[in-house]
Amino acid sequence: MAARDKVRIGILGASGYTGAELLRLLRYHPQAEIRALTADRQAGKPLGAVFPHLAGEGLPDLVAIAEVDWSGLDFVFCGLPHGTTQEVVAGLPRHLKVCDLSADFRLADTATYAEWYGHPHRAPDLQTEAVYGLTELHRAAIGAARLVAVPGCYPTAAQLPLVPLLRADLIDPDDVIIDAKSGVSGAGRAAKESSLFCEVAEGIHAYGVAGHRHAPEIEQGLSAAAGRPVVVNFTPHLMPMNRGILETIYVRLAPGATLADLRAVLEAAYSGEPFVRVLPEGGLPATRHVRGTNLCLIGLSHDRLPHRAILVSAIDNLVKGASGQAIQDMNRMLGFPETTALEHRALFP
Amino acid sequence: MAARDKVRIGILGASGYTGAELLRLLRYHPQAEIRALTADRQAGKPLGAVFPHLAGEGLPDLVAIAEVDWSGLDFVFCGLPHGTTQEVVAGLPRHLKVCDLSADFRLADTATYAEWYGHPHRAPDLQTEAVYGLTELHRAAIGAARLVAVPGCYPTAAQLPLVPLLRADLIDPDDVIIDAKSGVSGAGRAAKESSLFCEVAEGIHAYGVAGHRHAPEIEQGLSAAAGRPVVVNFTPHLMPMNRGILETIYVRLAPGATLADLRAVLEAAYSGEPFVRVLPEGGLPATRHVRGTNLCLIGLSHDRLPHRAILVSAIDNLVKGASGQAIQDMNRMLGFPETTALEHRALFP
Amino acid sequence: MAARDKVRIGILGASGYTGAELLRLLRYHPQAEIRALTADRQAGKPLGAVFPHLAGEGLPDLVAIAEVDWSGLDFVFCGLPHGTTQEVVAGLPRHLKVCDLSADFRLADTATYAEWYGHPHRAPDLQTEAVYGLTELHRAAIGAARLVAVPGCYPTAAQLPLVPLLRADLIDPDDVIIDAKSGVSGAGRAAKESSLFCEVAEGIHAYGVAGHRHAPEIEQGLSAAAGRPVVVNFTPHLMPMNRGILETIYVRLAPGATLADLRAVLEAAYSGEPFVRVLPEGGLPATRHVRGTNLCLIGLSHDRLPHRAILVSAIDNLVKGASGQAIQDMNRMLGFPETTALEHRALFP
Amino acid sequence: MAARDKVRIGILGASGYTGAELLRLLRYHPQAEIRALTADRQAGKPLGAVFPHLAGEGLPDLVAIAEVDWSGLDFVFCGLPHGTTQEVVAGLPRHLKVCDLSADFRLADTATYAEWYGHPHRAPDLQTEAVYGLTELHRAAIGAARLVAVPGCYPTAAQLPLVPLLRADLIDPDDVIIDAKSGVSGAGRAAKESSLFCEVAEGIHAYGVAGHRHAPEIEQGLSAAAGRPVVVNFTPHLMPMNRGILETIYVRLAPGATLADLRAVLEAAYSGEPFVRVLPEGGLPATRHVRGTNLCLIGLSHDRLPHRAILVSAIDNLVKGASGQAIQDMNRMLGFPETTALEHRALFP
Repeated sequence: MAARDKVRIGILGASGYTGAELLRLLRYHPQAEIRALTADRQAGKPLGAVFPHLAGEGLPDLVAIAEVDWSGLDFVFCGLPHGTTQEVVAGLPRHLKVCDLSADFRLADTATYAEWYGHPHRAPDLQTEAVYGLTELHRAAIGAARLVAVPGCYPTAAQLPLVPLLRADLIDPDDVIIDAKSGVSGAGRAAKESSLFCEVAEGIHAYGVAGHRHAPEIEQGLSAAAGRPVVVNFTPHLMPMNRGILETIYVRLAPGATLADLRAVLEAAYSGEPFVRVLPEGGLPATRHVRGTNLCLIGLSHDRLPHRAILVSAIDNLVKGASGQAIQDMNRMLGFPETTALEHRALFP
Repeated sequence: MAARDKVRIGILGASGYTGAELLRLLRYHPQAEIRALTADRQAGKPLGAVFPHLAGEGLPDLVAIAEVDWSGLDFVFCGLPHGTTQEVVAGLPRHLKVCDLSADFRLADTATYAEWYGHPHRAPDLQTEAVYGLTELHRAAIGAARLVAVPGCYPTAAQLPLVPLLRADLIDPDDVIIDAKSGVSGAGRAAKESSLFCEVAEGIHAYGVAGHRHAPEIEQGLSAAAGRPVVVNFTPHLMPMNRGILETIYVRLAPGATLADLRAVLEAAYSGEPFVRVLPEGGLPATRHVRGTNLCLIGLSHDRLPHRAILVSAIDNLVKGASGQAIQDMNRMLGFPETTALEHRALFP
Repeated sequence: MAARDKVRIGILGASGYTGAELLRLLRYHPQAEIRALTADRQAGKPLGAVFPHLAGEGLPDLVAIAEVDWSGLDFVFCGLPHGTTQEVVAGLPRHLKVCDLSADFRLADTATYAEWYGHPHRAPDLQTEAVYGLTELHRAAIGAARLVAVPGCYPTAAQLPLVPLLRADLIDPDDVIIDAKSGVSGAGRAAKESSLFCEVAEGIHAYGVAGHRHAPEIEQGLSAAAGRPVVVNFTPHLMPMNRGILETIYVRLAPGATLADLRAVLEAAYSGEPFVRVLPEGGLPATRHVRGTNLCLIGLSHDRLPHRAILVSAIDNLVKGASGQAIQDMNRMLGFPETTALEHRALFP
Repeated sequence: MAARDKVRIGILGASGYTGAELLRLLRYHPQAEIRALTADRQAGKPLGAVFPHLAGEGLPDLVAIAEVDWSGLDFVFCGLPHGTTQEVVAGLPRHLKVCDLSADFRLADTATYAEWYGHPHRAPDLQTEAVYGLTELHRAAIGAARLVAVPGCYPTAAQLPLVPLLRADLIDPDDVIIDAKSGVSGAGRAAKESSLFCEVAEGIHAYGVAGHRHAPEIEQGLSAAAGRPVVVNFTPHLMPMNRGILETIYVRLAPGATLADLRAVLEAAYSGEPFVRVLPEGGLPATRHVRGTNLCLIGLSHDRLPHRAILVSAIDNLVKGASGQAIQDMNRMLGFPETTALEHRALFP
């Protein structure tokens, strides 16, 4: 970067929803200069052909990855599918800083990766090098990183409320139940029957129960916080909305701990944070209150069951759960103010 | 009833969603003859003025309750708001059999009622007389009842999977967590800001956490099943769909119990039931699979947490959660085949 | 059929939405016996694998078309894609009566077919033999037909209000503008990006403007009614709902004609019809008032522009616009009462 | 304003959707300082009590109008109901510049106002003083105005495509048909049955046909453009989305005019405009492409009917149709760059 004013950015896999969201948000970044957009199957088309709402904005046409002149770039956001990502990133010149939005570099443990993804990692060195990009919890390491793995949407909404409580030994690490509800954009833009309007509208269902790949990612973060292996119940549901994740988290209090203790620890953990807000007593978040923002809202409630408590967190899965956090990470990696391009009020209704 | 072919039915509070749903379903009932429809504030209007989709069906005009000729009726469905219901039902002639869809007669214990509703019950004798109308679990009593309290929507979806497991001592009664998601029709047709399209669409939020009045109703049923007082976590969420309730229920297995045991007990409990289906291994229900039907679908899953399991139940809140179950109860009370008017395939998509 | 009680039915292409809807409705048909369900790519699976809401209903497994024993069938509903349909139907034994839901046999004129579909028809004899199945308008011919082409959803909602008016010379055939709004199920169950939840929810857009293949089908019907060639403006829009078509039709009155004349003609045309209802003055239909029903509701309004009028029609695109009308046609073809299996009240909300 | 850096702003009626949208957008305005927010029925509450998504943003508490210290304000946005607005605005000190979002000052003709609103205007002087705030069409007058009437959402989407064509005599003023589709936020935040989720979701219907109060507003603008009285067909529909208006406009070409002429005139009219975009040939807008933006997209299509054409316009009813245009007007009234706070990319999906 050195003395140049602007950071020259490439977005790989720009024709998906996270690509569109990066472009929406980077509009507000005075130092961001979009120089390359790739989409192999759409190469040669103007961006407006895949995203009419981004036509006429002066953004580059889509090209194939092979056509990118890497020397003209400083920074890459990678929004490719998991599996193929690791080889693409391994092939990038080392002068590039990279924020990867896939799952490929999120799991630090190679055995865990192989277990959940069914094959050994094909870029194990990079897997080790990569820093986990949950900004509020790994800020210093992100600032020094060349390759950041942007966390999954569900794991972001789970770890922000849970990690401080586990670090403070306020909840039982062996009794964490995460009931998560997500909008459909989390499934990406691939044409799948299960993402069709008629298969999603006017209904809700659980999926990936006890087998979703975000479970080991959550457990990795909670284990580090607890100082010992943690296994969780993570039960995602698909519901009829474009954006948003709500996680209702059921926890058992550690002996002697109270709901007030939980609140105090969370408020202290996030008191200076621009994007994480602990709601006042009686307040519980709604996903529509974070739509389009990089916020994570956290509410706490007592439970009718003794010695238990309820946490509720809400994020926009495409912002704090993906592209917004990626920009937040970029801001740290490049020394920009962390909130640049991310200070939005929610689009409601 | 005796020798007459048809049962002459009145519906009190016919201008709400449960009223409309009764009328939709009773269309299929060969013995049902709709003789009176009340809606005090809409008295004098044709039914089509409040429900255009029911215009032209030959149904009676709306009248005030005071105008009803009770001697011309055999059976009453009461869909009035809670609180006012108890006085109205207390004033009905005793020759009428009654299915009440409000909450007024669901709680058998007067102290519990007073605690949750803020005033002593105004018809305590009827509260004692009323039979709780969860058909599959109280069939015999319903058959002999004059006054049936149709269960709440959430309690129906909670008790059907949980009661057999508690009766069989297969789960820990002190560790039941019910995460419920409901469509908006559950809030009724009253013009409230919180039910506006723009306040509900494209989002989800929890409400009534640790304080919803369906909690004591659920606990009443589970306590009876467990043979001792049970308290539960019941956490409802409002989501953008017209109909449907999905409950994801997290349970701790009793010592020695396995998921296979739970499945065996539920399959045995409901093997002959027309409206409750335990899905085969690997199957989990979606609300869209029960839309418009009187079904309750139940799925089971193992949990990554040891010694725990996950149950998922789905109903249409307006059918099995209200008007359908009311008709099912009526069928029992009057000696009709229980499935009359209720054998529908789901409207999907 | 002769002396047999039940008609033995096969459904080709049963894994799409029209297939599911046929199965939902045929549940109410006392003479219908479902004997074969085909879905080439899903052959060998139980029906519940593609439609969980139809599991446990005792319906046949899915098979490939080649596996069907035609001698065991009396009647076939064909829900295959256009283009392939004509060859499949041409290969069916002649003892079968057929209701085809594709577009392949709707256009009687071979040149028009070739112009709009880009190739000559591959079964021109059948194209000539086929009877257009808009029941109210072609009842006699349908009763005598072996092969019926079930009309498109848009053309059904357009022709029902317009044909009687053109027959009576009450409107100008050269100034008909049809602004149509459809739910997403009209696009079928194919996994296409344009049908994804996130591409449809929270928005509306026009598509196929001045080029939709339902235009020539509408024009065919209107031309016959007017007694001379008619061209129309037909502008469809895709909107975020599962089911329903609303058509707002702008017409110019013939010299001397009044709105009252239009009303009188439509009321007379449909006075005895079970499924077409002309709303009283001031009434305009909503798609939610026909959800799940075989109804077509028609409303009329004066226009602020002189010598003009507005017609609004509403149908459920999967029922009167597809599977319901197919059953209505079958009832005529086989001599059953026309309303059998089709007398439903709308599912609202 | 003079030498002060910031404009001190009050928002009257801040608890509605247009109020929330003003606050969302003014977040991006470097010269805007929110000093007073009124909501008579919510006076005394923090803003977060009515808009949780705006809690924690440092915005003022809600007060009653009577409590406002007008001397501390420079500019007022008025988002009160029509009817009451005229008296409130009449009572404001004259040093305040005012953008009114109600309908009270949109109709310049007092007789027309009285006819459509059922009573004489109560501030006829202000009605005369007010400038109609469709920025692109009345820029100079807005710049000099003290009181601006922000246009209605429907009239904005209608006039932007139609006015240049009428000014250029390219279309027949006596044959304009506007089929409009709106999201529910256009109905405001009042708790009305017709705005309930269950009354709107999964359906569409026309309303206010031939009687909507936006018709005379549209006609006022088109009459001025045509140089003679114009009457239009304006047919609005309510559909299940939060935001967005799509208008499909059917026009008859003037003798000799072609679609290319229409395109040329519209492109010329809006070539330098930041917020109005004429899509290239073949392009038609979707409401989701303008969500959250101040854009109006316009597409043109030929019509199968000879000598006719189709125009399609899309806006976000809360932005270009209300609060965004109000800020655009404020920018002109106060000499700020017109695009300040309004340069957003659409939130998609």
